[in-house]
Amino acid sequence: MDTNVIGVDMGGTKILSAVVDAEGQILATAKMPTQAKDETSIVIDRISDCIKEAFQKSDVSADTIRAIGIGAPGPLDPETGVVIFAPNLGWKDVPLKTELEARIGIPTFVDNDVNVGTLGEHTYGAGRGVQNIVGIFVGTGIGGGIIMNGELFHGASKTAGEIGHIIVQEGGPKCGCGNRGCLEALASRTAMTKGLQNAIIKKGKKSVITKLTDGDLQQIRSGTLAKALRNKDKLTQKIFKKTTKYLGVGIGSIVNFLNPEMIVLGGGVVEALDEGFIKKIRKAAKKYALPDTLKGVQIVRAQLGDDAGVLGAAALARQRLNSG
Amino acid sequence: MDTNVIGVDMGGTKILSAVVDAEGQILATAKMPTQAKDETSIVIDRISDCIKEAFQKSDVSADTIRAIGIGAPGPLDPETGVVIFAPNLGWKDVPLKTELEARIGIPTFVDNDVNVGTLGEHTYGAGRGVQNIVGIFVGTGIGGGIIMNGELFHGASKTAGEIGHIIVQEGGPKCGCGNRGCLEALASRTAMTKGLQNAIIKKGKKSVITKLTDGDLQQIRSGTLAKALRNKDKLTQKIFKKTTKYLGVGIGSIVNFLNPEMIVLGGGVVEALDEGFIKKIRKAAKKYALPDTLKGVQIVRAQLGDDAGVLGAAALARQRLNSG
Repeated sequence: MDTNVIGVDMGGTKILSAVVDAEGQILATAKMPTQAKDETSIVIDRISDCIKEAFQKSDVSADTIRAIGIGAPGPLDPETGVVIFAPNLGWKDVPLKTELEARIGIPTFVDNDVNVGTLGEHTYGAGRGVQNIVGIFVGTGIGGGIIMNGELFHGASKTAGEIGHIIVQEGGPKCGCGNRGCLEALASRTAMTKGLQNAIIKKGKKSVITKLTDGDLQQIRSGTLAKALRNKDKLTQKIFKKTTKYLGVGIGSIVNFLNPEMIVLGGGVVEALDEGFIKKIRKAAKKYALPDTLKGVQIVRAQLGDDAGVLGAAALARQRLNSG
Repeated sequence: MDTNVIGVDMGGTKILSAVVDAEGQILATAKMPTQAKDETSIVIDRISDCIKEAFQKSDVSADTIRAIGIGAPGPLDPETGVVIFAPNLGWKDVPLKTELEARIGIPTFVDNDVNVGTLGEHTYGAGRGVQNIVGIFVGTGIGGGIIMNGELFHGASKTAGEIGHIIVQEGGPKCGCGNRGCLEALASRTAMTKGLQNAIIKKGKKSVITKLTDGDLQQIRSGTLAKALRNKDKLTQKIFKKTTKYLGVGIGSIVNFLNPEMIVLGGGVVEALDEGFIKKIRKAAKKYALPDTLKGVQIVRAQLGDDAGVLGAAALARQRLNSG
């Protein structure tokens, strides 16, 4: 019998869902705006509708849908499926799993979006067949997921993978978490944006970024940075040199400490850039990792792109269903 | 039937062996000088003699000895049991496992001394019943071992656990590995000794360390540091403040990244000091770890002391025998 699952990518602005077969093929998708300002129960109704829409668009029969997987933002409990805190949704202690199971009647599994992204790469993307993987996602912040022996590793407090908050430069720039010198404070898009704003506004440096954002430096997106690099913008190049260096420091530390088989790099910043960026990160990591340690470690780009969320969530559904 | 194993702690200056029963009780021990300058085959004969001596001192019959475990220094391959490089033994590519099996005829398992130390704490010490542990051993250098799901985690290049070489202060002091700002360069006994030498010799600072070492500042041992602290020596206190801070940064990073259930602290420096040192490290780690992340993580002192090596090696023998 066919066994399908539905993967849901629950974001602050949109909800994506997909019916995914046993081979990881997407059979149908649906998309809805999150409208996070609505009451929680209405947002959950919308997730439910989005799931049903993807199912209806697919040609599969209801009894082939074995489970639903959801990648959601924020700290959450993967066992109970409660979203503990998601600032971009305005959620606190939302029992997402049980609410959806009540609406749909199919076993539902929830995990954090970066964990789900890492699991997706392990199951269907760059890390197929690789048992020990660290996923690093560079965007507004820097998030991560850890696959150990083929399964997501959650840790004692279910918070494993907070790669953005390893400290690479004690006493360095202030991080959103309150500490100083976290990887996220040095190499996220937020750090790059701050660096650009500082150089352009306070130091009066010239940059194509000013033109690309029509002078609104709050509007620096990953695509803006990529365009500036393609334009060989000196200031952006300088900022990226720092980013690649600190990503190298962070990856070097992780490689020395955990020695995983693979580091998968993804997220908005990585997706907007070409393979040259990965090459530079690899080179930087080589400087900071012990030579023998780095030998067995692949540093690669995530492969799933826009489908990462739904495919990862589908992988989650399948893995959790099988592990009981 | 009784099942016993023999654990061997193979160091640069001495070889310790112990017959250990199924409950982790040491039934008999033996000790020999390593005399590492001798030819490799002679040193291995000596290990074999040390194993036999412990066995003869015990009252157990030969057929109850199921396996031999050895903790050895340096990078080594835990599968083949080849010691790849051990500078303090002058060894390169020594097939320790096969050489000992040829001499004794009992399955022999080899792992790195810090891995074995961590496994010992997991099996018989501070980490009994805890499935995910990071061991951190502070001595001349800083070494570490990782237990994931109850078993030693070796990683892609069999080098997992190089905690001394996570970078906590990019651009910081030079490390023996060639990089800058590694944890080992900031918080090992070597780093403390350098700090003391620099302050006393170059800056003319007063310290009880001068008297404790009869003016030979090459002779600063962990015990010397402990004595100086008990004497409330200002300079040593200052140096230790830095040590605890950077151990806190390193542990904070590990807790944020891996979120293990337990961090076990051991090694010469930790053993020489009292619980107050652990408390200070805990406090420092609290500053650098994310609050939610640290909640589930115990930071404790290693319990096995002088027996750590042989008991860890015994645990290795038993675990490897059982895992086939």
